[in-house]
Amino acid sequence: MSDKQTIALDAMGGDFGPAETVGGAVMAAANGGVTILLVGDEAAIQQELNSRDSSNLPIRIVPSEGVIVESEHPARALISKPKSSIAVCAGLVKEGRADAFISMGSTGASMAASVLAMGLFPGLNRPTVGGPFIGLAPKTTIIDIGANIDSRPEQLLNFGALGASFQRFWLKIENPRVGLLSVGSEEGKGNKQVQEAFALFKASGLNFIGNIEGHDIFADKADVVVCDGFVGNVLLKYTEGLAEAAARFLASTLGPESPAVQQIKGFTSSAEHGAAPLFGVKGLAMVGHGSTQGEGIAKAIKLAQSCLSLDLVGHLREDLLAAQKRAGTAN
Amino acid sequence: MSDKQTIALDAMGGDFGPAETVGGAVMAAANGGVTILLVGDEAAIQQELNSRDSSNLPIRIVPSEGVIVESEHPARALISKPKSSIAVCAGLVKEGRADAFISMGSTGASMAASVLAMGLFPGLNRPTVGGPFIGLAPKTTIIDIGANIDSRPEQLLNFGALGASFQRFWLKIENPRVGLLSVGSEEGKGNKQVQEAFALFKASGLNFIGNIEGHDIFADKADVVVCDGFVGNVLLKYTEGLAEAAARFLASTLGPESPAVQQIKGFTSSAEHGAAPLFGVKGLAMVGHGSTQGEGIAKAIKLAQSCLSLDLVGHLREDLLAAQKRAGTAN
Repeated sequence: MSDKQTIALDAMGGDFGPAETVGGAVMAAANGGVTILLVGDEAAIQQELNSRDSSNLPIRIVPSEGVIVESEHPARALISKPKSSIAVCAGLVKEGRADAFISMGSTGASMAASVLAMGLFPGLNRPTVGGPFIGLAPKTTIIDIGANIDSRPEQLLNFGALGASFQRFWLKIENPRVGLLSVGSEEGKGNKQVQEAFALFKASGLNFIGNIEGHDIFADKADVVVCDGFVGNVLLKYTEGLAEAAARFLASTLGPESPAVQQIKGFTSSAEHGAAPLFGVKGLAMVGHGSTQGEGIAKAIKLAQSCLSLDLVGHLREDLLAAQKRAGTAN
Repeated sequence: MSDKQTIALDAMGGDFGPAETVGGAVMAAANGGVTILLVGDEAAIQQELNSRDSSNLPIRIVPSEGVIVESEHPARALISKPKSSIAVCAGLVKEGRADAFISMGSTGASMAASVLAMGLFPGLNRPTVGGPFIGLAPKTTIIDIGANIDSRPEQLLNFGALGASFQRFWLKIENPRVGLLSVGSEEGKGNKQVQEAFALFKASGLNFIGNIEGHDIFADKADVVVCDGFVGNVLLKYTEGLAEAAARFLASTLGPESPAVQQIKGFTSSAEHGAAPLFGVKGLAMVGHGSTQGEGIAKAIKLAQSCLSLDLVGHLREDLLAAQKRAGTAN
């Protein structure tokens, strides 16, 4: 089955474009089990392919015109650039020519393109993004990390159900513990959003452990930490900034060669998998950080292959619907 | 002037009660410039005083009955325990027998007692709590850190004005840069609360630098980081948890004696001042972490002495009103 997987990669996405995306595609293709469609500027991609040993690999170029960048309004940019690399990627999945797409480009554009091309599960307004990002809590999924702001309680439930499903099928955690990030552990603590979501989680059939606080993330209390995208995004960027600042600080006091400096770089920020699925989309779309380089891109492709083999999207849909039905939020 | 300062200390507050509060009071009194009223169980306090060299120090005991603990509902507990140590402390300020009070006990009870005894500045629903808590950004005040949840945009403005006033008079930063914590730097990014607050901040006359993101806290972009108490409290506890987890991790890989382990304990969490003022109260009330011990308590008393000498409360009131008037949120 895995032999037939075809993955579209936005070759123009990310901070480096084809220089890194093509390298990642070549690594992934060499590992086998996948055909990669490199979507982007044909000449630029071909040049990168020529500079690598790629002649016998299952890699094909699908030409596109233009790139959507992070600063553009995603929906408007998709309309004005219908042949852009991300639009073509999503179209390939829609037409059944690819099983999944991956982009390191504008997350907003990937989200909009995936919704247009594939649609969303019932009850969702937008895809949700999350995953482990803390090196010191490498198996803890934080969800949502910025895609959904001002979420209704029903949406928090969706994040929890999708996050738990991901943990179950990706990290093989049988009954993932789901916690609501709040400012106190007792029921009733938190903002209105969390207070109202609490009741939905209790009814959801998820392994809901109640509210957890910021420090509990490091105490292995929950496998899935549910929060509004505003809070998750602040935490994500705070963690990145802290890791950098801590490494600089230790380098200045202990010397740049100190083992502590090397270790600290890894333990607050984690991009182990290169990219994360857009949860809630009726198909597999994955996004990664713009700074992801060749090896990270190869990892993202490998993750996409695994998600396809596991039928992650089918499981997500099933688990989401089950939680919505129990909580009474199903449409 | 400073000779006449009288500070009431909740001797029963905190994790250790008189064993640590009395020690802190003795240290602070020995430094001079202050009379300390130790409020609590007379016998327990006297016993601690007897075990220390305190005979000639300006310390007096004010008896109280009962203690309000963190798990109690603050307002209800104040009604059922009107002679509790925190209620007596606030009463001493109300009656003019003390210039300020300090407690390491229930923050909620301190807030409620201070509001009952002293009242709030116009436009506030509750006191706000904030200050520097990140060792790697030791001069950056984060406000609010848990007292105000689901704050209206007008309240965020109050946090910013009070935080800036504190930075000006405490850290001597002439024109503190105030940033709104959000998920993107451009105006319009963020949740509704932040989007609406943005316009108020622009009109406020504060040195408003716009939205900042989580990583900007470590890049010295703002002196005051404004956020809802939900977000601030999550960040505060996340930072505490991270510091502990990082120290454990480095101890396990580099050995517990490694200098990195010692340094990391200091650089993500900072309780340099022992306690923080409750901003917005028409008088000086200070709260500290329950785990604060003698030295921290002495520091808190010293901070209170400085705040009184600087007339911090008068400056806070003036600066708050000025910002509210400019932003059009004054009552």
